[in-house]
Order: sequence, then C-alpha cells, then structure tokens
Amino acid sequence: MIFMSLSSESFTPQDPDFESRVRASFNRQAAMQTIGATLASVAPGMAEIHLPYDGRLTQQNGYLHAGIVTMIVDSACGYAALTLAPAGVNVLTVEYKANFMAPAQGETFVATGRVLKAGKTLTVCQGEVRALTGGSATAVAAMLATIMILRPP
Amino acid sequence: MIFMSLSSESFTPQDPDFESRVRASFNRQAAMQTIGATLASVAPGMAEIHLPYDGRLTQQNGYLHAGIVTMIVDSACGYAALTLAPAGVNVLTVEYKANFMAPAQGETFVATGRVLKAGKTLTVCQGEVRALTGGSATAVAAMLATIMILRPP
Amino acid sequence: MIFMSLSSESFTPQDPDFESRVRASFNRQAAMQTIGATLASVAPGMAEIHLPYDGRLTQQNGYLHAGIVTMIVDSACGYAALTLAPAGVNVLTVEYKANFMAPAQGETFVATGRVLKAGKTLTVCQGEVRALTGGSATAVAAMLATIMILRPP
Amino acid sequence: MIFMSLSSESFTPQDPDFESRVRASFNRQAAMQTIGATLASVAPGMAEIHLPYDGRLTQQNGYLHAGIVTMIVDSACGYAALTLAPAGVNVLTVEYKANFMAPAQGETFVATGRVLKAGKTLTVCQGEVRALTGGSATAVAAMLATIMILRPP
Repeated sequence: MIFMSLSSESFTPQDPDFESRVRASFNRQAAMQTIGATLASVAPGMAEIHLPYDGRLTQQNGYLHAGIVTMIVDSACGYAALTLAPAGVNVLTVEYKANFMAPAQGETFVATGRVLKAGKTLTVCQGEVRALTGGSATAVAAMLATIMILRPP
Repeated sequence: MIFMSLSSESFTPQDPDFESRVRASFNRQAAMQTIGATLASVAPGMAEIHLPYDGRLTQQNGYLHAGIVTMIVDSACGYAALTLAPAGVNVLTVEYKANFMAPAQGETFVATGRVLKAGKTLTVCQGEVRALTGGSATAVAAMLATIMILRPP
Repeated sequence: MIFMSLSSESFTPQDPDFESRVRASFNRQAAMQTIGATLASVAPGMAEIHLPYDGRLTQQNGYLHAGIVTMIVDSACGYAALTLAPAGVNVLTVEYKANFMAPAQGETFVATGRVLKAGKTLTVCQGEVRALTGGSATAVAAMLATIMILRPP
Repeated sequence: MIFMSLSSESFTPQDPDFESRVRASFNRQAAMQTIGATLASVAPGMAEIHLPYDGRLTQQNGYLHAGIVTMIVDSACGYAALTLAPAGVNVLTVEYKANFMAPAQGETFVATGRVLKAGKTLTVCQGEVRALTGGSATAVAAMLATIMILRPP
C-alpha cells in the first residue's frame, strides 16, 4: 500500500521562515531525541519524521509500541500544522485518534503528517505511519488529529 | 477533578491467575522500562500504570510529550482488557482516541484503564491520565480504546 | 451496566439562565424534532436526550442506525458544554469519536453528555447511550467529544 | 479542496456480485430512506452516498446536523468494507471518529468511504463528506472508522 494525501490542496505558508521555526521546535522535543526520531522533511502543510527500529521501544511481542508509533505521527501532525501558522505561535495537540493496521515491525518507521484544513484556531491533520523493510513499505497506522494554534497573550 | 469509572459493573475474571499473566506481559514491554513506567495495580477490568516525570520525555515546552501520555494509558487499557481475557490469549490495540485536557506537568503521571465492555473478540476500554503534584491531581488526558483479543491459532 | 460520570467535579454555570438558553437552542434543532428526540434534563455540565425507537431510523438489521445513536449523544455533549458557557455564545462540534458496544435495540434510547473539562475555547465531553427495555438498561455507545465555544465577533 | 484517497491500493473483491449485495443492504436501511440519502456509486473498496440538503435535518443554525453528516459517511464506510467481504457476511460499525471542518451548508452532500486496510475480522476505512454548491465543493468532514466483518455462525 502506498499512501497519498487525502487533500490535494496546495498551501501557502504565512511565514516564509516556517522550516527553521519547525526545526527549532523539533530540536526542543527531548522525547524525539530520546527515542532516536529525526525530522526528515518539512514542506507547507506537511512534515515527515523517521524512526529506526529500536528494541528498547517495543511492546510484549517485540513490535514497536503503539504509543511510540503514535508519538512520531502526533509530532508529524503538529509540525505539519505549524508550517502554516504565523510566526511566534505555538501548537498544541487537542486530541487524536489512531488506527493500527499492521504490527509495527520493520527497519525504519516513516510518519507523515498533512494538513487537511488549516483554521485560525484549530487545524485538522491526517497522519500515517509506514514501516519500511528492504524496499517494501507497509501501512502501520492512520491518524486524524486536531491541533490548536496558540497565539501569545 | 477526581475521576470515577464510567462503569460500575463488577467483572469476574475468566482466569484466576490474571494478575501474574498481566504482570508477565508488562515486564516484556521494553518500552515501559525505557521510559520508567511501572504497573502499580491490577484488578478485574482495571490496570494502573505510574510514570515519574522525566525531562527526556518532553515536548518543546517541557511538558510530558502527548505520545508518552498516550503510551501509558494505551498500555493501561490493554492490560485492563487482558485481566478479563481467558488464559493463553494476547491483546492488541486496534485503535484509540485521546483528548488532552491540560498540559502534562507534574511529578508523577497516573494512567488508569478500565473495561467498559468485554467482548469475545473486542473489548472497549476507557482510560484517563492524572498528573500528581504534591497532594493535588489534574486530569491530563482521557481515552477511549478498542482492544482485540487474539486467540492462538 | 449502569454508567456513572467519569468526573465527579461539580460545575457552577456562568449564566444562571443556562437551562432556558439550552432548551431554546434544542428547539431550533429541526433534526431532533424530525427523529422524535426530546431534551429530558439539563443540569450544570450535563444534558440528557431521550429518543423512542422508531422503525424509520434503522439500519439493515432493524437496529437504530449508528448515525442516529451518534446524533443524540452528539447533541447531549454539545448541550452539556453549553450549560457552562457564558450567555450569548454558540457551540459547535469540533470532532467526536464513538464506540458502539451493543446493537441499538430497545424501547427508548437515553443519551447523556457530561463535561470532563470546560475550557475558554474548547470543552471536552464524555457521552453515553443506553437502551432501555422494560426495566433493564444496556450500554449501547460511548463517546468522547470536543466542543468549541464560539463567541460573537 | 478536492479529496483524494489516502490509499492507492486497488482491491479485488472476493464476491463478484458485491454491488448488488451492497445495494440490497442499503435498501434495507430505513434511516437512509427517511433522510433521503441515495447510494450513488459502489466500487471495490469504495462507496459514495448522496444527500440533498433538507431543512428537517438541521442543527440550531440551519446547517446539516453533524449527526446526519456522520450517518451518511458511516454508511459509506460500512458499505466500502462490505464490497470486499465474502458473500453471506454482515458488517457492523465498531467505532468511528469524525472531524468537522466547515459548517455543513450546501445543496448536496457527498459522503465517500474508502477501505484503507481490509482484514479478516476488522476493516479500517477512511471517509469524507463534501458539500456541493453550484460548481464548488467544500470539505465538511473527515472520518476514520473500524468496521467488523460478521460471519454467520
């Protein structure tokens, strides 16, 4: 299965400096460094996070823990939303829902977040996680998330 | 806010040895040890996981990452379901949804999973995470989760 | 199974006239009248909607359609949120998730919405639907919903 | 915004007679007839339902009620799953989550359900609702749903 975006809309960022802003925030997420995740790419309305398999992050059967899968796709969705937000704001996850479609086994996990609807206060994102092994990819999880744009008081 | 169960039903486990079975599975979850989570209590239809605050597990503002909050309450829900399952089965998270109600700041995080409906194939659980600081507790997250009971082939 | 609130917090409404405000809004929901739903009770942080079984509202097996079950508990959650909002605002459903735990068969369906966390912009609610037949009640659905408080511009 | 599928996988139905089976089930959903919804198209892994605007189905501001929006996309997801199921089975909605991205105003509402992952017991679907007015379409809602395949005992 190869995922495509639910949305074909092209987005224009309000802040031309969106990528460095997103990368700076990602670098402050200690949790991402602790698990070994990296911010692979950033584009208007999109962010992609990579995580190599790590035996320290597994559930009882040796697969990546669903919470870890969720963590990288949550961050991907949050940063997808941040790419379209004005400078100086913060983003916060209001809620999300994730479906787990296959055991999280593979060499590398690729989490992609994409904006479906960018609002003034709330942004809706779609996320997905694929497990890569050799040349093949398996869809592991799908997410639908609501992100809040927090303007400084 | 002090949470109470959405359900007042009392459950009778099918396997009297449910607690040792749940604890053995928890001990195989490397991810729980990596983040420092412990299985504080297990009862029919209920499991509680504790996690001390750890600066390595934070998002960009120094709060516990939403993915980590999700991880402990996901495990609590999965083990709540496992307490009521017959011996010899495995549990798998089908999907969940979490709402984040307050920044995850505190000394200790307490995740509780409770069974709402135990089915033959699917079990529905309700979860919650509270942040404890000194003597006070704050509701941080609420979850609704679907867990699958996997019988050996 | 008898449901209890996930939250034991008692709420103080900002607008003492909350009940008439909620009832006036409910009466403007044509969809509620079309399906035959009534607003049975309103209290601070809580609303309850009743719907008698109606063969016109069924899915392919003669049970109440999941969408109808969702409709009454969505409205119950929205009005639970509205009880705690200031006068003059409107509420809007941002998103929800529902689990269906038993076939929706019964004489009357009782949907209850309760506020878990009332925020300035977003309110998180928990909902449930029970099917009543004779003297017995069956839990049919559970919901977790995010409601937005819309202040006039 | 024009939606595209999250999945580009092409599905091969197990039952060549899937369309007549899906249409027969749709025709037994009294709720669909009551609200005026029609099954516009069916394809392997996909179903599309149309609903004209109807003032009897509105919430307090005159928009289509979120529960009605949910109802048509829930049915679209269920029937998308049914297209890929073997003959003689029934489908049941386990749970879903919907995000509402714009007020449901328009002349016609188009709900599309697509299979993301077809499993033996559970099928994961993605849904969307667009509101059509004149020649333009607005994304109104997105859904992620879990459908259970019920084999006869």
